[in-house]
Amino acid sequence: MNEKESKLIIGLMSGTSCDSIDVGLCKVNPDLSCTLLDGLNFPYPKFVRDKIFDFFAQEATLKELCQMNFVIGKCFADAANEMIKKHGKPDMIASHGQTVYHYPFDEKIENINLKSTLQIGDSSVISQNTGCMTISNFREADIAQNGNGAPLVCFADEKWFKPLNKGVAIQNIGGISNCTIVSPMYDTFGFDTGCGNIMIDYCCNKFFGQPYDKDGEIAKSGQINQNWLNLLCEDEYYFMNPPKTTGREYFSPKYIENALKLAPQDERDIIATLTALTAKTIADAYERFVYPNVSIDEIIVGGGGAYNPQILKYLKTYLPKHVQIKTHEDYGISNNYKEVMAFALLGYCTYYGIPNNLPCCTGADKRVILGKIAYA
Amino acid sequence: MNEKESKLIIGLMSGTSCDSIDVGLCKVNPDLSCTLLDGLNFPYPKFVRDKIFDFFAQEATLKELCQMNFVIGKCFADAANEMIKKHGKPDMIASHGQTVYHYPFDEKIENINLKSTLQIGDSSVISQNTGCMTISNFREADIAQNGNGAPLVCFADEKWFKPLNKGVAIQNIGGISNCTIVSPMYDTFGFDTGCGNIMIDYCCNKFFGQPYDKDGEIAKSGQINQNWLNLLCEDEYYFMNPPKTTGREYFSPKYIENALKLAPQDERDIIATLTALTAKTIADAYERFVYPNVSIDEIIVGGGGAYNPQILKYLKTYLPKHVQIKTHEDYGISNNYKEVMAFALLGYCTYYGIPNNLPCCTGADKRVILGKIAYA
Repeated sequence: MNEKESKLIIGLMSGTSCDSIDVGLCKVNPDLSCTLLDGLNFPYPKFVRDKIFDFFAQEATLKELCQMNFVIGKCFADAANEMIKKHGKPDMIASHGQTVYHYPFDEKIENINLKSTLQIGDSSVISQNTGCMTISNFREADIAQNGNGAPLVCFADEKWFKPLNKGVAIQNIGGISNCTIVSPMYDTFGFDTGCGNIMIDYCCNKFFGQPYDKDGEIAKSGQINQNWLNLLCEDEYYFMNPPKTTGREYFSPKYIENALKLAPQDERDIIATLTALTAKTIADAYERFVYPNVSIDEIIVGGGGAYNPQILKYLKTYLPKHVQIKTHEDYGISNNYKEVMAFALLGYCTYYGIPNNLPCCTGADKRVILGKIAYA
Repeated sequence: MNEKESKLIIGLMSGTSCDSIDVGLCKVNPDLSCTLLDGLNFPYPKFVRDKIFDFFAQEATLKELCQMNFVIGKCFADAANEMIKKHGKPDMIASHGQTVYHYPFDEKIENINLKSTLQIGDSSVISQNTGCMTISNFREADIAQNGNGAPLVCFADEKWFKPLNKGVAIQNIGGISNCTIVSPMYDTFGFDTGCGNIMIDYCCNKFFGQPYDKDGEIAKSGQINQNWLNLLCEDEYYFMNPPKTTGREYFSPKYIENALKLAPQDERDIIATLTALTAKTIADAYERFVYPNVSIDEIIVGGGGAYNPQILKYLKTYLPKHVQIKTHEDYGISNNYKEVMAFALLGYCTYYGIPNNLPCCTGADKRVILGKIAYA
């Protein structure tokens, strides 16, 4: 492969909350450092977002899936074109796509593994509508090597935070929460700690008609119900050994409705308790799976949850006193656009044939070159 | 891109009848000629084939689709590995995948096109399980350029049969029938002529418990019911102007059951009439859409239908007297493995960045580089 050069890469990502498509124009360098040059959010048309939520609820025909793969590809292309209008064409686009199913379980039929994942938003649609080479579908190759196909951002966390030379937990609090543990003495590892904002958001919507608990105001007005919190913390996922991943399929509306059967009556208390749950399950996960091997000096929070002061307050309560709570911005990395920066980095590596999964995070049998390349 | 070299490429394909995965080891040369070195058929495990037919019948959950994309990828990898066991690793694999949905209609929601296609059998699963770079998903880019994503084999037909320097119809009779029209004076074009063996096969199974009409024996024992044949020939698809494609979604069990409501009583007559229908709709299509522009000296038949003497007999009846009926073998091209040879050629072109759709066949706005590359 050619001599490596710095590349301008547009990273594209939509997470499990699918509010909008994150677009980040990044410069990725041969040393795998990455700078965000510009970022924007591109909202999904309402009918697309509605349809994705139908998919999450398992309400989909093959026809709809076939069509939405192209429709979402077009939305991703439109999102990239917003950025291209401002800055011109990049060297390539790296697109995560929209996850609509993730099945990271070792289950077999006739010796064929059912472990699988499904991201839609077709990359040929992106490349043809932008005129840019597009790299996509990063999770499949890892799963094909018996990994979980996630977390992938660990790879970026290692490149960006290992140089700090201390024990650091990079904790993303999105719909689902996941952490990467980077330390000078130990191989980087990571896993999904559990529900992030997904249960909070669901209940904010159900009880208060709000998409999320802005600034943690509702949680602040309620009280933690300790019995319910303890009960929620007993879910078996929290006790599974890493590497492990989870998703909306697990923390589904049905799961949450089931959990609500034993919830306190005051709806503010429900939000307060679920907010505490997010923090508590992170702290529990570190105690069970991190501290036995790695001492942590710092937690660097990210994702939407990093903007919820109540989550941060509870984290302070549940984490050991010496652990400092920092943000990505403290290290010059945009919290809002970190994931697209990470996918820009992954795309750069795919292009140059650099293996870009971390088996100790995903559980894969070996390092592989993730992704698929579609030419313009 | 590097200087072009001959490449060993394993082509992989499973058609709409999904009997088995066709595997062809091909040598593709810089002049885009292609030789089959070896071919084999790899049967799907029964549960996979059953599930694909569930998909065709629109009975699928997102979870099943997610899993089957990986399961079928593994089947394709197993199929390729059979060939690799005999001949060693090729330079790359080119996989068509398994079509489970194809929606080539210009239909929009909020100005976003719903035209789309869905081939499963994930290429990263193939590349990771074979250790070979795998090129796949050839149809999407053409559809993203407003094409129908089909027929793609036209590209190979042009490269292989244009040198004959006469008017030739290359007629594939698979589950669906499609033709490519190559002539010295006119741009190559092609389209799906309609049902191929799909209605015959369905009724052979329904009435005789046989997967297909071996050697046309059942058709031979029956009589054409002219009234029913005329009625079937009136379907609107046959009158649509090319470029056009169709599929199992159109000629569905429901469609066939509906057609059977007016069928003759003798089940052998049903098979005879459906066999005539396949031949008649081909001849009609030429009359309507080919002869006005291009004179045809020869029809080169291929696909499973090329082995049904009754189809050939009816073709002779319905086609103009001067048209010679030839087979692919007459030109040194394996009928059984032609499609995988074509996909090996498409993969070669993708690798070298050579545009490999034919807009006059697919209806695309422009020539593009089809396919996605997954490294080993």
